[in-house]
Amino acid sequence: MPGPDASAPPPRIQIQRPSPLVDCGRYAAKACVGDAVPVEADIFRDGHDVLRAIVRWRRAGERRWREAPMVRTDAHLDGDRWAGEIAVDACGRHEVTIEAWTDRFASWHDEVRRKVAADQPDLAGELSEGAVLLEAARERASGEDAALIAHALRALTDAEVPQQAKLDAVLGAELLAAVERHPDRQHLTRLAAPLPLDVERPRARFGAWYELFPRSWGGFKGVEKHLDRFAELGFDVLYFPPIHPIGRRNRKGKNNALKAGRNDPGSPWAIGNREEGGHEAIHPELGTFEDFDRLVAAARERDIEIALDFAIQCSADHPWLTEHPEWFQHRPDGTLKYAENPPKRYQDIYNVDWDCEDWPGLWDALLGIVRHWVAHGVKVFRVDNPHTKPFGFWEWLIAEIHRDDPDVVFLAEAFTRRKVMQALAKLGFSQSYTYFTWKNGRHELSEYVSELANTEERFYFRPNFFANTPDILTSYLATGGQPAFEARLVLAATLSPSYGIYSGYESSESVPVRPDSEEYLNSEKYEVKRRRLDGALLPMIARLNAVRREHPALQRVEGVTFLDTHNDGLVAYAKQQAGDTVLCVVNLDPHNANEGVAVVPAHLGLAPSFAVEDVLGGERYDWRIGPNYVRLAPGERQAHVLAVVR
Amino acid sequence: MPGPDASAPPPRIQIQRPSPLVDCGRYAAKACVGDAVPVEADIFRDGHDVLRAIVRWRRAGERRWREAPMVRTDAHLDGDRWAGEIAVDACGRHEVTIEAWTDRFASWHDEVRRKVAADQPDLAGELSEGAVLLEAARERASGEDAALIAHALRALTDAEVPQQAKLDAVLGAELLAAVERHPDRQHLTRLAAPLPLDVERPRARFGAWYELFPRSWGGFKGVEKHLDRFAELGFDVLYFPPIHPIGRRNRKGKNNALKAGRNDPGSPWAIGNREEGGHEAIHPELGTFEDFDRLVAAARERDIEIALDFAIQCSADHPWLTEHPEWFQHRPDGTLKYAENPPKRYQDIYNVDWDCEDWPGLWDALLGIVRHWVAHGVKVFRVDNPHTKPFGFWEWLIAEIHRDDPDVVFLAEAFTRRKVMQALAKLGFSQSYTYFTWKNGRHELSEYVSELANTEERFYFRPNFFANTPDILTSYLATGGQPAFEARLVLAATLSPSYGIYSGYESSESVPVRPDSEEYLNSEKYEVKRRRLDGALLPMIARLNAVRREHPALQRVEGVTFLDTHNDGLVAYAKQQAGDTVLCVVNLDPHNANEGVAVVPAHLGLAPSFAVEDVLGGERYDWRIGPNYVRLAPGERQAHVLAVVR
Repeated sequence: MPGPDASAPPPRIQIQRPSPLVDCGRYAAKACVGDAVPVEADIFRDGHDVLRAIVRWRRAGERRWREAPMVRTDAHLDGDRWAGEIAVDACGRHEVTIEAWTDRFASWHDEVRRKVAADQPDLAGELSEGAVLLEAARERASGEDAALIAHALRALTDAEVPQQAKLDAVLGAELLAAVERHPDRQHLTRLAAPLPLDVERPRARFGAWYELFPRSWGGFKGVEKHLDRFAELGFDVLYFPPIHPIGRRNRKGKNNALKAGRNDPGSPWAIGNREEGGHEAIHPELGTFEDFDRLVAAARERDIEIALDFAIQCSADHPWLTEHPEWFQHRPDGTLKYAENPPKRYQDIYNVDWDCEDWPGLWDALLGIVRHWVAHGVKVFRVDNPHTKPFGFWEWLIAEIHRDDPDVVFLAEAFTRRKVMQALAKLGFSQSYTYFTWKNGRHELSEYVSELANTEERFYFRPNFFANTPDILTSYLATGGQPAFEARLVLAATLSPSYGIYSGYESSESVPVRPDSEEYLNSEKYEVKRRRLDGALLPMIARLNAVRREHPALQRVEGVTFLDTHNDGLVAYAKQQAGDTVLCVVNLDPHNANEGVAVVPAHLGLAPSFAVEDVLGGERYDWRIGPNYVRLAPGERQAHVLAVVR
Repeated sequence: MPGPDASAPPPRIQIQRPSPLVDCGRYAAKACVGDAVPVEADIFRDGHDVLRAIVRWRRAGERRWREAPMVRTDAHLDGDRWAGEIAVDACGRHEVTIEAWTDRFASWHDEVRRKVAADQPDLAGELSEGAVLLEAARERASGEDAALIAHALRALTDAEVPQQAKLDAVLGAELLAAVERHPDRQHLTRLAAPLPLDVERPRARFGAWYELFPRSWGGFKGVEKHLDRFAELGFDVLYFPPIHPIGRRNRKGKNNALKAGRNDPGSPWAIGNREEGGHEAIHPELGTFEDFDRLVAAARERDIEIALDFAIQCSADHPWLTEHPEWFQHRPDGTLKYAENPPKRYQDIYNVDWDCEDWPGLWDALLGIVRHWVAHGVKVFRVDNPHTKPFGFWEWLIAEIHRDDPDVVFLAEAFTRRKVMQALAKLGFSQSYTYFTWKNGRHELSEYVSELANTEERFYFRPNFFANTPDILTSYLATGGQPAFEARLVLAATLSPSYGIYSGYESSESVPVRPDSEEYLNSEKYEVKRRRLDGALLPMIARLNAVRREHPALQRVEGVTFLDTHNDGLVAYAKQQAGDTVLCVVNLDPHNANEGVAVVPAHLGLAPSFAVEDVLGGERYDWRIGPNYVRLAPGERQAHVLAVVR
């Protein structure tokens, strides 16, 4: 550390515990275009001098920094936490730093003011200090401020002017403000290293997803015919499982049978065959590239995006197995390893060998696949099982894509241990699947959502609450009938800014292949369905999606407060953002009516009594701080989504 | 980040959130010689392979690293937190790192075992992989392990041996253990930067302090006569306010009077005069350097240390004011600034000017003062108001001293904002004064001590709970009589491994200069007393100090659990360490008896019922998990300190 050998003493001001900071800056925090990002730090120095601090930011590579003031937020608690807000308006990596300096004139001003208040008689020495400070301030200032400062300075240095008049001249608030407008930042202290911040477009945070197998909708042309309806329903993203040719060898049959029948289409995740191609090809039965491009464009006209699945695995017929055998793992006896996690075996799938000698060639080829689809207008990718591939690969791939296309959104489909899911989010995935599907009780929902909203995870982990997926039909849904689907829909759509459903949810499809299995009977993964948009839940979905767009409170995971209900069958929460408040109460029991209260705490800042409107049904109620009676019955009404009337 | 241009792919294993880590490694965590320091991290990789991890450490500058295994501590929760322990046995800066690697043989072993369990028939490919792994293991191994591995390898590669016999040969636990003893660490992942750890001697953490003004005890010779008694009482440190010559100009009189009487001795903190010298001199009335050296040596023979006060401030007569006027702040009109914090003025004290041009000369001179007293055997310094001096100065000074004398202990006397106190601890102060003096209620004690014991602060902030000081006679003590002194003594001595009292505490001296002032009437700061060791609390003090030495539970701030009492007049807590449990119950009300319970929770790991012995009175009681009745009455008994009988 610097000692007497150094050319200057170490800085007097400490800037500690800056936020947002992820793993000491090893990873970037996340934000979206349009956000006002809070930046905080502990800022203090020895002694009693007055400090000033600002936050500065720029896009990486830009020369000019922008800046905003920071203020001490906990002065009333005698604390040292300072905060400011930065406005980000472009995608890409940003740098954020904090600067602080001692405000010598304000410190002097404060000291002299206190001495005057204490009736200290002789302040000639103090006034001689003030003259030096004002002289310097006058040189920094210009225009009216400079004139004001010069005026005070003349009074201060004129031997004819009595001390009281001198004090009157220099202790005014106007002079202080004039000097403050021209701060002396010569000896400022800066954060040791800038905080990295990755800015993405708002869709990375907020959106309603619908997952569909295009082969069940008449291919790309069939999907295109439904676009107007999807737009009416308020969906932002249509996500397709892999659209590539499907392998023939070891193809799985209906209900995951080891042997496929002659007409079985196979799982879309068994990617590639010799005749039709691999990850950069389209399954001929879905349409042509022309059809695909037209679909993407037509969707975009309706503000809908087509999201593709990026699944790094190959069927036994994938062209890479013959073109690049060096990218696959062979045993010493020459046999090729298929995917397995004993006792499970995935004989229709071969994983690439991340430890192979030509890993650079493999990485480049995989990057090429993503670039290929980006070139076809795909800006959202759902990545299959990223946690079974190297973290370093993803960090590199996402950064490479974002360098040219910072608007590409990556969703991590990892259902695994918490730290692993967090690591994927840290390294760059825009959003992530979650444990939401398995949180059905009041306390586990409250605990999980509160963690996402309030812990350090909020800086980098953006949830996407899928209510079901082709792999996940929970027993709650399988046994709860339509009321269960209503409850989970409301929870997903109001607790998470991004949420999704998979085809059939709107019709409360709920027959598992076996009791206690999360697989669907006659799963669409292994057969073609004839899908239509006619489920009973569609009006509720359309209403929820519209409400989500109207209410900022529903567009962020932060700002959630769980409320006492005096009944564990009811979960209640307030969502708040930018003056907007939505109160939700959901009956978690799909079989029985539940009554209780929603206790609105005073700290939410609502009026003692206030009007709410149920945005699902349109009813108005009078609510108040404290307990509010609620009764919800399956078949009648499963949930309240109550907007506080402003 | 590394991409295909790199010579090797980035490491597969992630090591995240290592602990202990203070401000991302900007500051060192603390430990003491003899500690087993827990080191933790999240360690994981993609996929399902088996990992191994170790923690390695060395003194800075040493070449050889020592190492200890880490184990996954939350495997039962499907977590990824690994922990190990390092044993530190020398003072000074240490480096700690973590290494992890994929255990390829154990991964293979696990995979094949699961396939055998699932009755997979043909494992020829798997066995061919095993042969390669075992061949490499045999080359790493030696002695019996090599022989065992070679034996298995022969079975594996012999075409005559049937598959079942091959599997029997390679899946045994003995073979696995033999291979594990010779791990293949070729592709290990290491923490990006080592964790810094400062190791001090145990006195930095644990000790009983007694503060005395030697001028009130007959100078150094008088103190020396009391050493045997102090040793009997169990004190480890005798701390002296400044022992230097005292200024004459602007000397303060009795009770802080602006004008001193002719015989007033002045405050020891107004350091230095022209005739007798400054910070490196001794006040002639206390004795000579010979007397001082003899006292220090005599104390050391009794395992007692003399601690000096390091107060960087000068009286108006300090030699530096004339020898080094450039180290003091002069106003533009030539006047010299004395210490002040309006409306308070300290006209007998001048602060050095940290912003002066010759700051290197000033820093060196101050370092010289500390070195001077270290050369006279002083290894403990209580530093006066360090928060009004630059943080960078202290970080440099402490590091400079510790380079040659890592056994020097610095106590920060800073009563200021939390972040500032934490910053001083982080930069190197061994221990710190605290807010303990003003925490008299059950909840505030529980909150404060739990924060010190359980938050990140425990890595670097070591408390010293002074029950009183010459500046702090709290209203609790001033109005509570001897029961108040008993309560606070027990709290200080059992809640903090370091604690202290200032002369007179043992006699319950409690007359303030004014009602509601924390200053003593006729403060010893401004006059000489005639002190004797005859206070009524001395037997209790001696007993507590003895108990503290016997019980590891009382030697660390960690391991404290506050217990329900069903009465806020009683505070109860368990202290636990290394199998040792001490249960304390203190009546916080010095005026009234209080009855209630101490609820012992099951998670403390005690037997359903157990015997305790009151180490203050010797009584035995039968206690149990759950509520235990307690009644404490002023004048009878103010506190229980109950050792669980093992």
